[in-house]
Amino acid sequence: MADLGTRLGEIVGAEHVSSGDAVAEDYTHDETLTAEPARPAHVVRPADAEQVAAILALAAETGTPVTARGSGTGLSGAAVPRADGVLVSFERMNRVLEIDTENHVAVVQPGVTLAELEERTKAEGLVYPVYPGELSSSLGGNVGTNAGGMRAVKYGVTRHHVLGLQAVLPTGEVIRTGGRYVKASTGYDLTQLIVGSEGTLALVTEAVLKLQPRMSHQATVLAPFPDLATVARAVPRVVGSGIGPLILEYIDALTMGAITHTAQLQLGVPDEIRDTAQAYLVVMLENNATERLDQDVEAVGTLLGELGSLDTYVLPGPAARKLIDAREKAFFTAKGAGADDIIDTVLPRAALPEFFSAVMEIAQGNQTLVVGCGHAGDGNVHLAVFQKDPEVRHKVLHELFATGMRLGGAISGEHGIGHEKKRHFLELEDPNKVALMRRIKQAFDPTGILNPGVLFD
Amino acid sequence: MADLGTRLGEIVGAEHVSSGDAVAEDYTHDETLTAEPARPAHVVRPADAEQVAAILALAAETGTPVTARGSGTGLSGAAVPRADGVLVSFERMNRVLEIDTENHVAVVQPGVTLAELEERTKAEGLVYPVYPGELSSSLGGNVGTNAGGMRAVKYGVTRHHVLGLQAVLPTGEVIRTGGRYVKASTGYDLTQLIVGSEGTLALVTEAVLKLQPRMSHQATVLAPFPDLATVARAVPRVVGSGIGPLILEYIDALTMGAITHTAQLQLGVPDEIRDTAQAYLVVMLENNATERLDQDVEAVGTLLGELGSLDTYVLPGPAARKLIDAREKAFFTAKGAGADDIIDTVLPRAALPEFFSAVMEIAQGNQTLVVGCGHAGDGNVHLAVFQKDPEVRHKVLHELFATGMRLGGAISGEHGIGHEKKRHFLELEDPNKVALMRRIKQAFDPTGILNPGVLFD
Ligand SMILES: Cc1cc2nc3c(=O)[nH]c(=O)nc-3n(C[C@H](O)[C@H](O)[C@H](O)COP(=O)(O)OP(=O)(O)OC[C@H]3O[C@@H](n4cnc5c(N)ncnc54)[C@H](O)[C@@H]3O)c2cc1C
Ligand SMILES: Cc1cc2nc3c(=O)[nH]c(=O)nc-3n(C[C@H](O)[C@H](O)[C@H](O)COP(=O)(O)OP(=O)(O)OC[C@H]3O[C@@H](n4cnc5c(N)ncnc54)[C@H](O)[C@@H]3O)c2cc1C
Repeated sequence: MADLGTRLGEIVGAEHVSSGDAVAEDYTHDETLTAEPARPAHVVRPADAEQVAAILALAAETGTPVTARGSGTGLSGAAVPRADGVLVSFERMNRVLEIDTENHVAVVQPGVTLAELEERTKAEGLVYPVYPGELSSSLGGNVGTNAGGMRAVKYGVTRHHVLGLQAVLPTGEVIRTGGRYVKASTGYDLTQLIVGSEGTLALVTEAVLKLQPRMSHQATVLAPFPDLATVARAVPRVVGSGIGPLILEYIDALTMGAITHTAQLQLGVPDEIRDTAQAYLVVMLENNATERLDQDVEAVGTLLGELGSLDTYVLPGPAARKLIDAREKAFFTAKGAGADDIIDTVLPRAALPEFFSAVMEIAQGNQTLVVGCGHAGDGNVHLAVFQKDPEVRHKVLHELFATGMRLGGAISGEHGIGHEKKRHFLELEDPNKVALMRRIKQAFDPTGILNPGVLFD
Repeated sequence: MADLGTRLGEIVGAEHVSSGDAVAEDYTHDETLTAEPARPAHVVRPADAEQVAAILALAAETGTPVTARGSGTGLSGAAVPRADGVLVSFERMNRVLEIDTENHVAVVQPGVTLAELEERTKAEGLVYPVYPGELSSSLGGNVGTNAGGMRAVKYGVTRHHVLGLQAVLPTGEVIRTGGRYVKASTGYDLTQLIVGSEGTLALVTEAVLKLQPRMSHQATVLAPFPDLATVARAVPRVVGSGIGPLILEYIDALTMGAITHTAQLQLGVPDEIRDTAQAYLVVMLENNATERLDQDVEAVGTLLGELGSLDTYVLPGPAARKLIDAREKAFFTAKGAGADDIIDTVLPRAALPEFFSAVMEIAQGNQTLVVGCGHAGDGNVHLAVFQKDPEVRHKVLHELFATGMRLGGAISGEHGIGHEKKRHFLELEDPNKVALMRRIKQAFDPTGILNPGVLFD
């Protein structure tokens, strides 16, 4: 019997398999700060669903672990391969198959990046509104993690835009789920089950995505606040106003200082306000009619003033774009500053004030620096944790997650569990639910070849 | 060992169990036209999740089939019990536990009706926007069928508003899924898997529902069209315009005649237009600002004219409400007129013209009358089928469903599969998907006690 690399080459062509030392460094990790890189035995780059099916059949036959990889920008370690396994990289399956302007749908292969999809939809006056900061990420990866991002407060997350999938089961069958419609009651919703499953249930080979009409005008309001608690209390009010912001981000003063410094960005906030501001809200609005947009900007400004902002600034277009861009890169700023881990707990948004005060206590109680920003409109808090000692760090994370869950939240809003948050997940989640999830995993993947070690031990 | 009825009485109190002939007729059916009624051995009315868990543990122990029932308004026969089984009626679990105005969430027991929830949210300036025509239906039933309705074109369906559940597994554990947040990437999405599972995976004992700010003003535009094809072609244009209609319904001329006649409703359409109109679009818009609403009404009127409508009428409030009400009751009008079955195929909305012409051919080819209306914005077509011969009717339905699926659709958009569409589902659906769904069913319900005969044989 030929060795595994040879047999993979028979499926995809030898030039699309790398093995051993020929595996490039980039395939050994994602962007997670804590994950140990691992060089897979083979990297294989299939061209279509049939090849993916053949790879999975071979893996099942040989009991080989298989990890899917999109762009490797994930923050949970879920695309880090196993040293004894195969990494399936979707880089060659990178075509936008269709922009269907009648049904407002894009059909894409998993390797398509958000940047590419943005360009293709823009040309048609449509938009795929899900906007996780990293536009080099792939749609397959976005489906894998149920990616969120800044616009979720208006449009929802990946889950809400995936109408259907073509997927290969670890048992080798190619199925199609859902379709170019927004609803069905025809059996179990396999689409939604696969979204967010971090490559543990099936490999996605095509996605049908819901598009929206693209709005023509945007405006951005920046509001400094005296403290985080006031910001947190303002969030439900802004959402409840009915104005429907496109973006509603909070950024604490330390993070704002760091990201504007890194981006060399002047926002026109006078020194005396910047010196008192402990946190900021960034509210972006959109509309097709400039008149309506202006009215909404006015209304948001007034509302924020009532809710305790120190002042409000309507940012000029270029400054607004730079700020959003700098916010997207907050992760790299934190990384550059030496952050040891990043978490993205999600909470009921009204629980933010209590969460923030608990965060402060946990940080102080453990001599740890915890700073952050986040998708406040969704109650999704991104915290950078500066603590070199892994045991203390684990304790801090555990306390943060436990607090979030006690307040009705979940460990991760959008980054996922992967390897890196698994210990917390298994420690804190209801064992009955974990057991049920394991049985579901078993229903898809009886031989356990897909991303072993992710989510479960 | 005491008999089952006695043991159920020990769990919920004897006064909350009915057995044998004491079971009221209403429990033997739902609203499905074709389903054979069945009198269950026992009806049990639990008061809380613990009692539900005890009932399921007893059923698992004794191998007794269990069917959940909300208000029994379903249209797939999925709440019709088994003669040898227990019907769990949620009528006593009918409390709105909380309207959380900060997080825009309602927490309800499954027996709460839409009518009750509407009243409670209205008082807070919020709305649960999912609007299946039957307001006496329960939230538990809505979750069971993934109910849709007229406002799905703007707000989505039940699935998009269920943020979390408390559910009892057939293995007896009580779990909580999701929470008061719109997104998470923390393990598999059990909430979405249970939604639409027609009582086959778990019994829902609490639901966390997303609410929206309630808009203050609505306006309704009625547009007669010369034929169904023109209506069908107009639908994607209206959706694509970015105006964001709240309701976008089509009603064919026969159905319009019947429902306005039944409701004794005058719409002010002159005779000469009514005589040529073969179909109608009903477009409802909403806004908080009357000025914006007026502009949008104007824009929609112009657009519909361009798209081929014979004229457009802005309906006065009372007439609009009556028309929507009559549309909701279209099912009963069809039933009264002797319809033999109702289906609700969903399609990519751009496939509507082709589907409508196929429907006409199938109807004529089988000497069957097929008329309808539907949630055109979602591509969800409700057809009343008049054909007494069950074999011919099965053939007609089979051809309609097969055509819908060939055009990229699914058998049911919102009513579900139940018993009544099961033969079609099993004949037409990919067997690999059905097999996977069975394995998922097995993962939840290893002893097969929950709603046996629904979805699968
Ligand atoms: C600077 C920065 C900012 C970010 N901001 C955000 C943000 O705002 N919101 C957010 O949600 N995320 C954010 N992320 C995280 C990351 O971009 C997302 O998790 C993204 O979805 C990962 O996509 P990817 O293609 O890089 O996936 P990868 O990292 O390659 O993989 C992610 C997961 O998906 C699986 N997968 C990949 N392809 C497939 C497939 N075809 N079939 C099945 N499974 C597959 C992998 O196995 C893995 O489990 C950010 C990351 C960075 C570096
Ligand atoms: C006139 C009329 C108009 C209608 N219009 C629409 C429409 O526009 N859109 C639409 O979607 N539907 C419509 N329907 C169908 C119906 O109203 C919906 O299917 C509704 O969701 C059923 O709710 P119910 O409480 O009556 O559920 P039931 O009929 O009692 O049950 C429906 C399903 O849910 C399950 N179930 C009930 N409670 C629970 C629970 N607690 N846990 C788990 N499973 C449970 C049952 O087992 C069954 O499978 C209409 C019906 C009528 C009669």
